[in-house]
Amino acid sequence: MCADTLTASVVGGSGFTGGELLRLLAGHPNFEIAQATSRSYAGKSVGSVHPPLRGTELRFSEPDDLESVDVLFTATPHGVSMGQIDEFLEIGDTVVDLSADFRLNTEEQYEEWYEGHSAPEYLEKAQYALPEINRENLPGAELIAGGGCNATATILGLYPLFEHGVLEGGEQIVVDVKVGSSEGGAGGGEASSHPERSAVVRPYAPTGHRHEAEIEQFLGTSVAFTVHAVDMIRGASATAHVFPSGPVSKGDLWKAYRGEYEDEPFVRMAAGGGGIYRYPEPKAVAGTNVAEVGFELDPSNKRIVVFSAIDNMMKGSAGQAIHAANIALGLEETAGLEFLGLHPVGAP
Amino acid sequence: MCADTLTASVVGGSGFTGGELLRLLAGHPNFEIAQATSRSYAGKSVGSVHPPLRGTELRFSEPDDLESVDVLFTATPHGVSMGQIDEFLEIGDTVVDLSADFRLNTEEQYEEWYEGHSAPEYLEKAQYALPEINRENLPGAELIAGGGCNATATILGLYPLFEHGVLEGGEQIVVDVKVGSSEGGAGGGEASSHPERSAVVRPYAPTGHRHEAEIEQFLGTSVAFTVHAVDMIRGASATAHVFPSGPVSKGDLWKAYRGEYEDEPFVRMAAGGGGIYRYPEPKAVAGTNVAEVGFELDPSNKRIVVFSAIDNMMKGSAGQAIHAANIALGLEETAGLEFLGLHPVGAP
Amino acid sequence: MCADTLTASVVGGSGFTGGELLRLLAGHPNFEIAQATSRSYAGKSVGSVHPPLRGTELRFSEPDDLESVDVLFTATPHGVSMGQIDEFLEIGDTVVDLSADFRLNTEEQYEEWYEGHSAPEYLEKAQYALPEINRENLPGAELIAGGGCNATATILGLYPLFEHGVLEGGEQIVVDVKVGSSEGGAGGGEASSHPERSAVVRPYAPTGHRHEAEIEQFLGTSVAFTVHAVDMIRGASATAHVFPSGPVSKGDLWKAYRGEYEDEPFVRMAAGGGGIYRYPEPKAVAGTNVAEVGFELDPSNKRIVVFSAIDNMMKGSAGQAIHAANIALGLEETAGLEFLGLHPVGAP
Amino acid sequence: MCADTLTASVVGGSGFTGGELLRLLAGHPNFEIAQATSRSYAGKSVGSVHPPLRGTELRFSEPDDLESVDVLFTATPHGVSMGQIDEFLEIGDTVVDLSADFRLNTEEQYEEWYEGHSAPEYLEKAQYALPEINRENLPGAELIAGGGCNATATILGLYPLFEHGVLEGGEQIVVDVKVGSSEGGAGGGEASSHPERSAVVRPYAPTGHRHEAEIEQFLGTSVAFTVHAVDMIRGASATAHVFPSGPVSKGDLWKAYRGEYEDEPFVRMAAGGGGIYRYPEPKAVAGTNVAEVGFELDPSNKRIVVFSAIDNMMKGSAGQAIHAANIALGLEETAGLEFLGLHPVGAP
Repeated sequence: MCADTLTASVVGGSGFTGGELLRLLAGHPNFEIAQATSRSYAGKSVGSVHPPLRGTELRFSEPDDLESVDVLFTATPHGVSMGQIDEFLEIGDTVVDLSADFRLNTEEQYEEWYEGHSAPEYLEKAQYALPEINRENLPGAELIAGGGCNATATILGLYPLFEHGVLEGGEQIVVDVKVGSSEGGAGGGEASSHPERSAVVRPYAPTGHRHEAEIEQFLGTSVAFTVHAVDMIRGASATAHVFPSGPVSKGDLWKAYRGEYEDEPFVRMAAGGGGIYRYPEPKAVAGTNVAEVGFELDPSNKRIVVFSAIDNMMKGSAGQAIHAANIALGLEETAGLEFLGLHPVGAP
Repeated sequence: MCADTLTASVVGGSGFTGGELLRLLAGHPNFEIAQATSRSYAGKSVGSVHPPLRGTELRFSEPDDLESVDVLFTATPHGVSMGQIDEFLEIGDTVVDLSADFRLNTEEQYEEWYEGHSAPEYLEKAQYALPEINRENLPGAELIAGGGCNATATILGLYPLFEHGVLEGGEQIVVDVKVGSSEGGAGGGEASSHPERSAVVRPYAPTGHRHEAEIEQFLGTSVAFTVHAVDMIRGASATAHVFPSGPVSKGDLWKAYRGEYEDEPFVRMAAGGGGIYRYPEPKAVAGTNVAEVGFELDPSNKRIVVFSAIDNMMKGSAGQAIHAANIALGLEETAGLEFLGLHPVGAP
Repeated sequence: MCADTLTASVVGGSGFTGGELLRLLAGHPNFEIAQATSRSYAGKSVGSVHPPLRGTELRFSEPDDLESVDVLFTATPHGVSMGQIDEFLEIGDTVVDLSADFRLNTEEQYEEWYEGHSAPEYLEKAQYALPEINRENLPGAELIAGGGCNATATILGLYPLFEHGVLEGGEQIVVDVKVGSSEGGAGGGEASSHPERSAVVRPYAPTGHRHEAEIEQFLGTSVAFTVHAVDMIRGASATAHVFPSGPVSKGDLWKAYRGEYEDEPFVRMAAGGGGIYRYPEPKAVAGTNVAEVGFELDPSNKRIVVFSAIDNMMKGSAGQAIHAANIALGLEETAGLEFLGLHPVGAP
Repeated sequence: MCADTLTASVVGGSGFTGGELLRLLAGHPNFEIAQATSRSYAGKSVGSVHPPLRGTELRFSEPDDLESVDVLFTATPHGVSMGQIDEFLEIGDTVVDLSADFRLNTEEQYEEWYEGHSAPEYLEKAQYALPEINRENLPGAELIAGGGCNATATILGLYPLFEHGVLEGGEQIVVDVKVGSSEGGAGGGEASSHPERSAVVRPYAPTGHRHEAEIEQFLGTSVAFTVHAVDMIRGASATAHVFPSGPVSKGDLWKAYRGEYEDEPFVRMAAGGGGIYRYPEPKAVAGTNVAEVGFELDPSNKRIVVFSAIDNMMKGSAGQAIHAANIALGLEETAGLEFLGLHPVGAP
């Protein structure tokens, strides 16, 4: 483990994800924040945008003033990183990109789900950030691509079923995701205004959500995917309705999930125990880097219902990025990510 | 149409559903409230429990003091009405029961999903209240059984597909319902307390929800059914993921839904138009007796996604009951149910 | 009472207040909507912006296409009406303006709290819309100025104390108002986005709120006024901490409030009775034109605490405007405003 | 500073405050949790009640099985600790009581605001936990009394004005506090149920709130105090309307607040700077031990408006208790309390 302090900068520091990265870096034992860029807020204190950072002296820098660092986190809108990736890789020894630019493996996939890619040569070099499915490739990685929040929740729920032989690919899977308003990012528009967005159950991506691409890439099978906006700020909750081809017992499921996750520091099972929080819920992981995963069997419909819940700002983006960086740089895996969450807690 | 004023009483008047019935009756041009019973609140003003009724002089009566009326609405917990149904039918010329006691057609069905039925002879006599699927049997009905809120939302979404040949039965259907806290009724417990219930996405009926029975009864096919609690007070939103056996076009779907619903006063289509509210949402129907229904096609997954949204207290219980009573008694169908809703509006 | 149907148009029909006016007019027995203007949405259906109006065929008109009507409601941003008032008065026999342009009596007052007024000659002609304090001047009024929502709540709470001799003017009065997000209007900005606006208790007008001007105009005394934004959509709740110069009993207070309000159709007392809703609450009046008013005595601090709660979109703007128009035109006072509210109900 | 690990137990571990104490102790570098008692949940895992603790093996103990520890935190309902204080002081070398039992200095005060005290001899021995006003008496204290949450917010807002000569006592002060639902504790009743409690602005303590006693004890003057329940879970926001006897400038205020708080690790000023969060807000401190304090001048009303915001579960109870224990035991003041908060964040 590295005892020295590493320098880290955040490109796109005024957005929600950028703010979370800064907050986590500020509390991280091994990192020192060098710069946080923001074209709109350059010169202003980061605390004027992100209240948790009010105690620091840090001010936003102009993007053009970036200096070399050990790790560069890029929290820019989709399409920005691919245009500046060479520059970013010169600035940071390690680059962790939190946009969708490098999540997919091939140019063909990218073009199917997004639009043309301007730096396709990096697609196969980039390592997917999610340690639970790609830990072995992270140490020493130079370019890390943070996973999509809804894809992360879905993949973590279903992955053990494929890895442990419960599913083989080709089975019918419906994934119904519920997400909070922070997924829309800072700024928002009319649909994101408090009067219009509060208390909704709004089908915001009935079909064709781009995270389907990542899910299919890592599970090797397609899923019927729908996303609803609900009234919370942080959080993504994925419910997968899975129809296996043969009989499956609770024992099979426990074996698959325990086998996959029992040593994972940031995955926790919640499958029908006692108390109020019997299954995964975003509230139970709010503010943490933990993913909760659980399941229930529906014998009369030959169905497995898989639940997974994350804080989309943490396990679904900034926390996952720090986790991956920790592994890439040989730090303690859980460094800076130990927050346990709160109880009670509201719109996570 | 009947010009005289009819008398109506509500059994179980202190609960949420009872309160809604009283509120609707108070604003109904053809009804006069005779009594509202409540064992706990007998003697107290109905307005002390239900703020909308603060302007009335009505006080809760003891259940034993019920007098004869034209229509008796029974909003009691499941299992109560079946034990008193003979008495209720003596008191009311028409009885509209809002519990689950008379929703299913046969004793076998009832025993599969609930427990023993003490008045099974009424099961086939009772008419299901939902006019969109049972209007022809309501005029003159003596015993009407209000539908379950989640069943109502689901049935209204899927029924046209079966009636108009898009589905035949046996297709794979997953229904993922999101519901508000009023479904838990007044009183609540620890899990319904504000700190624990706010901002949840909580799998509260992962499998085996009893409304599955009604859905199967009326659609003639089984559905894989899961209910999540989300942060709203009123509202049920059902998303059905349907896998038809052959190709289906948007035209086929519009034909089915328009064919079924274009003359329905309380069903409204919302399927991908402009604005913020493109698909059905509980907020868009909050406080009204309207069900919104819409759909989207997912060609790559050979899937139809059907959305339906209701106010569970209105179209899902009290409004549906008044609507059925209007038809049963030959009144104007929409009498007392004309409220258009609010915009903007919060947790519906 | 007039039995004919009157025509009404709404200028600024796509905003929240415009939408409420249209909704109320659509359900009003004496009005027929002629036009609803919106520069941005001209040609689009009003239902695409305001879900409650999805059942109507009405489309937004260009502001320049306005035709003559019996009543013209103007729901434009502050400063617009004063520039077009001559034109508006030609179009509508009666004009009800919901902006701040004509609320104050003199140009001096206006300039103290706002900026220069371009049509000061109308300031003394305009009649303040709030019937509880200005009913006698409304019949036949040509120009009516709707009151500010926070001013309305405050005035209704304090007015009886001045009218019935409990206060004389000059006493210390602190008013602490809590408001919902609809006061910010449609569109919103970053501060109004759901992630930033949810669950706040935000001092948004610590001092110097412009509604102070109206309050002082009608009560004849100054108040120390502070407004907080809280997490609801509709609703304004004013708490006035009043320090009378001499002793005051509960009897004195009941006498003042009953004396003032017992015949008012839209004011309801709530002062420490039983049940959950013991004092005025926005939830108890959500969607209605009712103002709830109540009080408590604090003998040890020689203080009267006065509570008042309204739905800012109704009693605080659109409902108050319809109420005033009803009186101005000799219609039934309560016509179109009979909605009783809902229970339970969320962010009102 | 002490490098050894100290043992700590929590009496009343299943309540909200108990859960927060356990969570903070679990993340504290100097404490090891010995026991958490709960009569109702004895034998169950603490994680089944408090999701943040799901990663620990700890189970609830019977209260009678308490063993000796270095510090005993008692989070029991008011009135319990006074009956067991001798026993508690035998079990814990230091006892930190979070109830109201030992907050007041004299039996007379206690009897005025509560009921009879069964261990009045401890009233003057107990040290008030709030370090900002009582730091010098905490080192080595054997019995520490945690402050009330609303009192804490109020005292922190007003204390500098008295300490730095802006106020002398006797001035008119109105304090209007807005609180979240966690103040009601776990369990809740009908009024705390989600449908009834959501989106309220509810006057729940119009006058006579017991925290007035603490405020008067520490400020030396009475305040007119009113508490409203609003829609958040954590958080208390106090707005004090202060009427000084002579002129006061912004410079005077900054001098008072900076003079008092500039070295305080857990007090942060927020007084009209840029950004969305210009004044103290519960959201800005959610999950942290920070109190935000700010002010605005209202020259036309000769008023100072003072805002203060805390997380009632942290600075208002569990965090304050840990802070005081850190000082009492000679640990690093901020140990275990470094969490910076989240942005964005919902109902705190």
